[in-house]
Amino acid sequence: MALFTNQEALDYHSQGRKGKLEVIPVKPCATQKHLSLAYTPGVAQACLAIKNDPSRVYDYTNKANLVAVVSNGTAVLGLGNIGPMAGKPVMEGKGVLFKVFADVDVYDINVNQPDPDKIIELCTMLEPTFGGINLEDIKAPECFYIEEKLIESLNIPVFHDDQHGTAIISGAALVNALELSNKKAEDIKVVVSGAGAAAIACAKFYQSLGVRNENIYMYDSRGLIYKGRDGMNPYKALFAQDKDYGTMEEVIKGADLFLGVSVKDILSQDMVKSMADQPIIFAMANPDPEITFDAARQARPDCIMGTGRSDYPNQINNVSGFPFIFRGALDVRASTINEEMKIAAAKALAKLAKEPIPQEVLDAYGMESMTYGPDYILPKPLDPRLILHVAPAVAQAAIDSGVARITLDMDAYVADLETRMRASQQRIQTAIASYDLEF
Amino acid sequence: MALFTNQEALDYHSQGRKGKLEVIPVKPCATQKHLSLAYTPGVAQACLAIKNDPSRVYDYTNKANLVAVVSNGTAVLGLGNIGPMAGKPVMEGKGVLFKVFADVDVYDINVNQPDPDKIIELCTMLEPTFGGINLEDIKAPECFYIEEKLIESLNIPVFHDDQHGTAIISGAALVNALELSNKKAEDIKVVVSGAGAAAIACAKFYQSLGVRNENIYMYDSRGLIYKGRDGMNPYKALFAQDKDYGTMEEVIKGADLFLGVSVKDILSQDMVKSMADQPIIFAMANPDPEITFDAARQARPDCIMGTGRSDYPNQINNVSGFPFIFRGALDVRASTINEEMKIAAAKALAKLAKEPIPQEVLDAYGMESMTYGPDYILPKPLDPRLILHVAPAVAQAAIDSGVARITLDMDAYVADLETRMRASQQRIQTAIASYDLEF
Repeated sequence: MALFTNQEALDYHSQGRKGKLEVIPVKPCATQKHLSLAYTPGVAQACLAIKNDPSRVYDYTNKANLVAVVSNGTAVLGLGNIGPMAGKPVMEGKGVLFKVFADVDVYDINVNQPDPDKIIELCTMLEPTFGGINLEDIKAPECFYIEEKLIESLNIPVFHDDQHGTAIISGAALVNALELSNKKAEDIKVVVSGAGAAAIACAKFYQSLGVRNENIYMYDSRGLIYKGRDGMNPYKALFAQDKDYGTMEEVIKGADLFLGVSVKDILSQDMVKSMADQPIIFAMANPDPEITFDAARQARPDCIMGTGRSDYPNQINNVSGFPFIFRGALDVRASTINEEMKIAAAKALAKLAKEPIPQEVLDAYGMESMTYGPDYILPKPLDPRLILHVAPAVAQAAIDSGVARITLDMDAYVADLETRMRASQQRIQTAIASYDLEF
Repeated sequence: MALFTNQEALDYHSQGRKGKLEVIPVKPCATQKHLSLAYTPGVAQACLAIKNDPSRVYDYTNKANLVAVVSNGTAVLGLGNIGPMAGKPVMEGKGVLFKVFADVDVYDINVNQPDPDKIIELCTMLEPTFGGINLEDIKAPECFYIEEKLIESLNIPVFHDDQHGTAIISGAALVNALELSNKKAEDIKVVVSGAGAAAIACAKFYQSLGVRNENIYMYDSRGLIYKGRDGMNPYKALFAQDKDYGTMEEVIKGADLFLGVSVKDILSQDMVKSMADQPIIFAMANPDPEITFDAARQARPDCIMGTGRSDYPNQINNVSGFPFIFRGALDVRASTINEEMKIAAAKALAKLAKEPIPQEVLDAYGMESMTYGPDYILPKPLDPRLILHVAPAVAQAAIDSGVARITLDMDAYVADLETRMRASQQRIQTAIASYDLEF
């Protein structure tokens, strides 16, 4: 089933130019005149213009399009605390995704630093350089504290994708799953398996979508989280039930939604059978979900199921979110990515799933047809319409909620995005082709 | 005389893609398979390989070719303390030069931080990401302390170009000027105007080339630096004379070398006239030197003169150094850039000036001929042979002095550099052409 061998994955990283990112000039630099514009003496004009009006940094540098992907490597994918050097391939990979999907430029910043306060200091120092900061693969609960403090103090967006990316994409899936099953967010009973960064962020975000706090039953490795239990932290405490209602096996009876951000095989067929009508199952453990798609569907043919996998329906993949969320935020020079912008992103994703699917998307996935329904509640990650729907929705929400520094004509913006992405993809393909690699 | 207007310099920075640097992927990323290699699940293979053997970070990431240009904007060009945002165009410009001249990838890191200890912390945190750190436009004396501490503690090269770049290039010029005037470094009397980062680094480096400490007379805005004087710091103290020998006008009598890293017009024709036979004048204040070329030559037709300007002979331009010094250091994974490597760079530059000049270099400068002599003691900054001479010399010195992590077959290395630069320049030109800008 694997698309490639382990050796091929290593070769991909080492052959041709080592690693995955290169930095190139975007202005002519072939003559002495060009170099005098790019560096001294010409560059002094740009410096002085910014000194006199700091907002011109968005005109005369690449700040407006530049995101720092900051990680200390303490929680990399499913690999755990492997450190900043071993985490670097992931952060470069994140840069590849930002670029390919949304033409956002990324400097990956892998830091040798477990102390959250020092990471806050680092990001604060970096603020002048970047248009936004994407925190990545930093372990919980430090990641919550780091993000909270930075959002308070910085005037550029700070976004921990492991939290909000998963929350927004699965939130979009939830919106459509609820519609398909004729349920209201206010009424559903939710069982959450896992209490790490993504689980807590999902549970919080679902509340923004209407789910009631008292209807959320969150489990960590010690069982249900409830008031006064051992092994708590302030973030888990937000979801503490008033008492111990029992094991997941007991509590899942009649539940409408199972949210898994934990480990494989934790959800049994019997547990699925005990859930409410048209149960919603988001089993997002990677690479092996809390229950396989086939097992869940066999236990409950009426279930609506999403996983992290690309080889089953309804892949909940962060790449459907972060590139476009940052694109929209950067393009209005937003000072933050607030809840309104996250909700706008989720709703734009949910809405796009209801539109007819272009042939090129079907071709990319080798499918004959896909229609909005239990097995298609989310747009596919490779759908080129994503940027055109999500980025403008996020930008508009930033404007409406008062955190945008500039406004946009949205029709013109959508047209610009199309032109921009076509040119960017062309440029990238040409550059990559020059390395003449076969994968 | 100016090659461009101020508006053109601003347009260069803002037209097309804003700023001067873009980050692009170097591996195929058109299909789902490609993305599975670049990111999860394939990327985990690269992560685990590095976790098991940290040296593999040089194979599976771009670290081996990545330099951080770190600045807090406290001493930007001649503009002073304009801060990190206003300094960003310069740091991006440095990235352009690194790339165009030596195919080195740069992330410009502009930090909001005057405290030298915090900058040391920042660079220490960044070590896992980068193959080297180029400190830039950080004011003296903080820059000395920052570099010293980082060189002590980090295992990647840390190089403050404002200091050593100027020292190495002018040091190369000094080697040839001494040869042409039949003088020995050990014997010359030196007057230094300026006591900032570059002046002190030059004076130190000239000592490495043989100049005697007691023969160096350094002046700051208060006059000659001597023991017990007010307004000293530990770095100036290295060059303190035993007593006050008087004004520069008095002391320059009979001097063999004037080194100016100060302000325009500080050196008069009368002072030049009072210098020794075949006086050497490095007047490097930018954009206007301590004395103009024409005034110096008129006062002393036998002088050997260098300035920072491209429109006169013997331009002392850092771009003849740092790209190739880092290229050589990176290519042997040097743990530092030591004195041996700096001397090797200077000697390689000095030697190259004695070789016949290719037609393409003459064409680039619109000259009919140039021959080694008083008006050509340094290779031209646009000479494409620079990388082929300087980088291998630096790499060899790193190997010989025991700071290289790997060795190279030098003949093969030179051939590789030629191939690499041709491919890089082709790729850059193609990408830039896609923006269709006219400058």
